[in-house]
Order: sequence, then structure tokens, then C-alpha cells
Amino acid sequence: MPRWEPDGVGRLQNAALELFAEQGFERTTVAEIAERAGLTKRTFFNHFADKREVLFGRAAEYQREIILRELGESPDDVPPLDAVVRGLQAAADEMFEGNRDDVMRRGAIIEANPELHERELRKRAALTDTLAEALRARGVDADTALLTAQAGALVQQTAMQRWLQSAEKRPLRELFAEALASLRAVAGTANP
Amino acid sequence: MPRWEPDGVGRLQNAALELFAEQGFERTTVAEIAERAGLTKRTFFNHFADKREVLFGRAAEYQREIILRELGESPDDVPPLDAVVRGLQAAADEMFEGNRDDVMRRGAIIEANPELHERELRKRAALTDTLAEALRARGVDADTALLTAQAGALVQQTAMQRWLQSAEKRPLRELFAEALASLRAVAGTANP
Repeated sequence: MPRWEPDGVGRLQNAALELFAEQGFERTTVAEIAERAGLTKRTFFNHFADKREVLFGRAAEYQREIILRELGESPDDVPPLDAVVRGLQAAADEMFEGNRDDVMRRGAIIEANPELHERELRKRAALTDTLAEALRARGVDADTALLTAQAGALVQQTAMQRWLQSAEKRPLRELFAEALASLRAVAGTANP
Repeated sequence: MPRWEPDGVGRLQNAALELFAEQGFERTTVAEIAERAGLTKRTFFNHFADKREVLFGRAAEYQREIILRELGESPDDVPPLDAVVRGLQAAADEMFEGNRDDVMRRGAIIEANPELHERELRKRAALTDTLAEALRARGVDADTALLTAQAGALVQQTAMQRWLQSAEKRPLRELFAEALASLRAVAGTANP
């Protein structure tokens, strides 16, 4: 699945996504995932703690790195929320754009398994924390940093939802910009 | 706990909060809750499906009613996000203001029990859906309604977090107004 890891990890994640979609998350074993990927169970456990982690591992850290790099390179005069959205756009370009089917498959698997929700939500919360931390490092006060990070997460959620609609053909980057503009309009004090 | 239900339901919720705090959620039985409230297990099950529901039941519906009433009475020229925040403020006045200790105890119990997180999050998502639905009924388009509801939920989350800090003495209503102003500032295009 993820272009950004064409190695054993990527093959295992690919195999897992296929098997979870074919026969369900519950009914798939680590042995089957390893076999489909042409690797051993041992290799699987070198990379992932369990069957759940194959859906989550690495991606969050990779996304974190891209966002922090982008935020770090963002000029000081870029307003905090814009800097956050630039970071999210860079991660979207590298990780999601061109992989819509995989992102949809992954989302459907998580949606269908309540035991995965908690972990997904914790990963999202960790991303918000990362964004807030990066903003504090730019000199933004703690309250504003948290609220800006949460507003950024809302922009991401809005853009991703739209992107996953099959009728939507625009690049993800553009949908992030549109979602940011929508949030600004919604938050505006002017009458609708 | 909740002033708004000084009947059997309120006594059961009070007893449950006390026992969960004293001896933990896991180790508390429905029989103990009923006994502490001076009621029977049968009465408990007349009101709640299970031990978890005693932390959640009724409050969400009560909050929903207040918000819908307030939104319905809000003049058409009130911008959608302001109407949402007015609804949330009205619910906060009636349900939370003056009950900070209970709200904190309830939050600590949910925080300590991962099995409760999922239900808490589903209740929050249901509130966002309710807000979005009420906005659509006011003629707001579906995308804007959803984003406005989510922005309102973010305002609520920000205000509640601040209110639960012991140093904070201002009324919750005022913290909602402040959180809305903060979100507007964060979303603004002006440099910080």
C-alpha cells in the first residue's frame, strides 16, 4: 500500500489490507499476513507488535516527520493555522495523494471494527499534540497552539472526507485549501 | 449528581458516581449502586441498560433538547456558529454550571476506563450530528452545517477544559464566549 515504504513493511501492510478486506479483520491471522507477503511471522513481529499495529505503525511517525519539517521551514510571518495546514498538505502529498483506494480500504476496516477506533483516535490525538508542540516551539502560547492544532485537525478531517467521495476529482492539496477557507467562513462574524 | 433529575434517576447517578470514584468503575456492581441509592436493582434496570449507561443516559438527550430549543428560538440573522454557541451555553447553564465537581468526577472515571471512551466519543459525535441537523433545518447547506457543528464542538471542548481547571473562577457561559473569540482569532488570516 504505502508508496513510502516499498520494503518488507510495505509488503506486510499491503498483504494485511488485502486480507482484512477479503475476509475481515477478526478472521485474519498474522501467519496469513506474513504468508501473503512472502515473509515469515518472525519478520512480521520484527516490525509490528500485533495485527492491529499493521494498520497504524509507521504512518503516524512518517506523517509527524513531514509536518514538523514543513512547519520548521515555514517563515515566521506565516500565521500559525496556515503553517499547520501547509504541513498537513505536505504530508497529504507524500502519503495519501495517489493512494485513495488504500486510504478508503483502511478507513473501511477501522470503521467496521470498534476495537480499532480507540487506537485510531489516539493516533489522531497524538498528531494534534505534535502540531501544538511545534507551534509552541514557534513561540505560540500554549492555549492558542492547542486550539490552532485542533482547528488544523478539523481542516484535515473535512478535506479527507471530501476527497474520499468518489465524485471528487480535485487534488487533496486543493481540498485542504478549500476546507481552510470554509472554516474561516464559518468562524467569520459576518452574517451568512 | 445532576440537579436536573432529583428523582430516582438522579439518585442512582449520584450513587454510581460516588461508588465509581471510591472503588473504581470495574469493581462496582449494579446491586451496590441500587443499594447506595436506596432503590432496587429492578429500578436500576428500569432506567439504565447497564452500569456504563448510568454515566451517560439522559444527559445527552437533555442537552439535545435544550440546544434544539435555543437554536429554534434564535433569530434568523444570528450567524450559524453564534447560534450553535448560544445553544451550547444554554445547556451549560442548566446542566454544568454549579456542578463542576460532579463533571470532574465523571470525566475522571471515563478517562480511567478505555471501555468508556468509545461510548463518550459516540455521544459527542451524536451531539455534533444534532447540531448539524438543526442548522440544516435553518437553511444552512449540509457541508457548512457539519463544519459549523464541529467548530461549535471545538468551542465547547475548549471552554469545558478551561472551566475544569481549579484556578478558573469565571462562569462557564463566559468561557464559551472566550473560546469562540479564540477560535475566531486562530482562524483569522491576520498575522499573529
